Amino acid sequence: MTNHVFDTATAIKPDSSDSNVFHGETPAAYGNMVGPFGGATAATLLRAVLDHPEVHGSPVALTVNFAAPLADGPFMITARPVVTNRSNQHWMLELHQGDKPMVTATAVTGVGRETWADTEAHKPGVPAPDELPSEQPPEGIAWAANYDIRFARGALPTPDSGASADSTSTLWVRDEPPRPLDFPSLTALCDVFFPRVFLRQGQYVPAGTVSMTVYFHASALEVDAQAEQHLLGTARSQRFGNGYFDQTAQLWGRDDSLLATTHQIVYYKA
Amino acid sequence: MTNHVFDTATAIKPDSSDSNVFHGETPAAYGNMVGPFGGATAATLLRAVLDHPEVHGSPVALTVNFAAPLADGPFMITARPVVTNRSNQHWMLELHQGDKPMVTATAVTGVGRETWADTEAHKPGVPAPDELPSEQPPEGIAWAANYDIRFARGALPTPDSGASADSTSTLWVRDEPPRPLDFPSLTALCDVFFPRVFLRQGQYVPAGTVSMTVYFHASALEVDAQAEQHLLGTARSQRFGNGYFDQTAQLWGRDDSLLATTHQIVYYKA
Repeated sequence: MTNHVFDTATAIKPDSSDSNVFHGETPAAYGNMVGPFGGATAATLLRAVLDHPEVHGSPVALTVNFAAPLADGPFMITARPVVTNRSNQHWMLELHQGDKPMVTATAVTGVGRETWADTEAHKPGVPAPDELPSEQPPEGIAWAANYDIRFARGALPTPDSGASADSTSTLWVRDEPPRPLDFPSLTALCDVFFPRVFLRQGQYVPAGTVSMTVYFHASALEVDAQAEQHLLGTARSQRFGNGYFDQTAQLWGRDDSLLATTHQIVYYKA
Repeated sequence: MTNHVFDTATAIKPDSSDSNVFHGETPAAYGNMVGPFGGATAATLLRAVLDHPEVHGSPVALTVNFAAPLADGPFMITARPVVTNRSNQHWMLELHQGDKPMVTATAVTGVGRETWADTEAHKPGVPAPDELPSEQPPEGIAWAANYDIRFARGALPTPDSGASADSTSTLWVRDEPPRPLDFPSLTALCDVFFPRVFLRQGQYVPAGTVSMTVYFHASALEVDAQAEQHLLGTARSQRFGNGYFDQTAQLWGRDDSLLATTHQIVYYKA
């Protein structure tokens, strides 16, 4: 934990009497159109797991379901280790405001083991971050100012963009100001891709993540090795319809390691 | 519900006093190496949501975490509607055997709406099901006998297969005997892909799904329209390492509709 705005935004305090309970507050610095940036909420939930006295291993999987838009103010997280095996541990989490459940989640942590290994996916070939311009954060989206984003492809639509047949965005991203990568910040980065429907429609339309899953491929050592460098992210959708679309994404290190793969289902009106 | 082996295998009975509780039994007909086929378990959990008196809408997302291998015998499912919004509903589920939690899950159901729609993914071009041979179910894997599987690419390894650089399998699949598709059977079909590491290694190695997510793109009408026809599935991995790999898959209808996209993280030794 540092004094970085991300750490302040995702800080939680353990409850004085129940080790499964943590208290936090929605971060103004990571505000979105409605409520806080989902990536910050997901990171805060993961932090509850990692801060828990009984945690076993490092993150393997996290699913976060955004049931209701958070109101500005305090919240309570319950993080319950449901099953602890020799090699992994299963968690159920809920975030409440007052007596109202707002977010549910499950997580798996695990003890990494030496195995045969291979990365089958291919990292997109793009110019280095310093060869691309830094995106100006869009008006009224507080959280975007905490990231340095450099699009190689599929930037946010402008009034002249028009519709696109391809929902792919590929971008370099790091915390702004720079901050050493850890599992919570990697989690938040998994949600840094704006809704793919914006790209397809060439305009902003109402949209919000309903459920998001992160698979953490990187070991703690690999995460540490990224330090403050940009990560390369690429995201695309497979199908839009009936009010929902999916997004599927990869996050790569400068060292060509595939750190995380992530998926979400998003509500939209268009 | 029919008399089909799938319906018998995934049948649950509502508890007489608590509408959030259902009782079931592990299905011998869908036995796997250890415990039942994960797809049948996932389908049974979804059935608990769909059978619940308060269900609102049809399935949008399902995440199932396999915390411990089920023992043969009875189990109890609790399915709790945590938040019900106008357009969607969030669920938390647990499956217990005795007092031991074995599986956790979250689900989202939603009321579909007319929206702009497009399928951006491309259906793989392969021969029709009747132009491909039906796979002989492997010895000792009971559940596989309940599916007609016809590989277009990436069949199960044989002693002569050798390692492969590509983890992709593309296959036609339907229930055997044929059965009209519904959301529970679609859920089970999302887990029909054998562990991708088998293909990469050219042999069977210890492996088991840790967490699985399904995004249901199809409306109830689209699911019904598939009737008893084969679906086309394609699955591949992005990264193997530290004892875990991911699988990401699509399930397509004969009518070219992308019915579901699905992801899982799998434990392995190799």
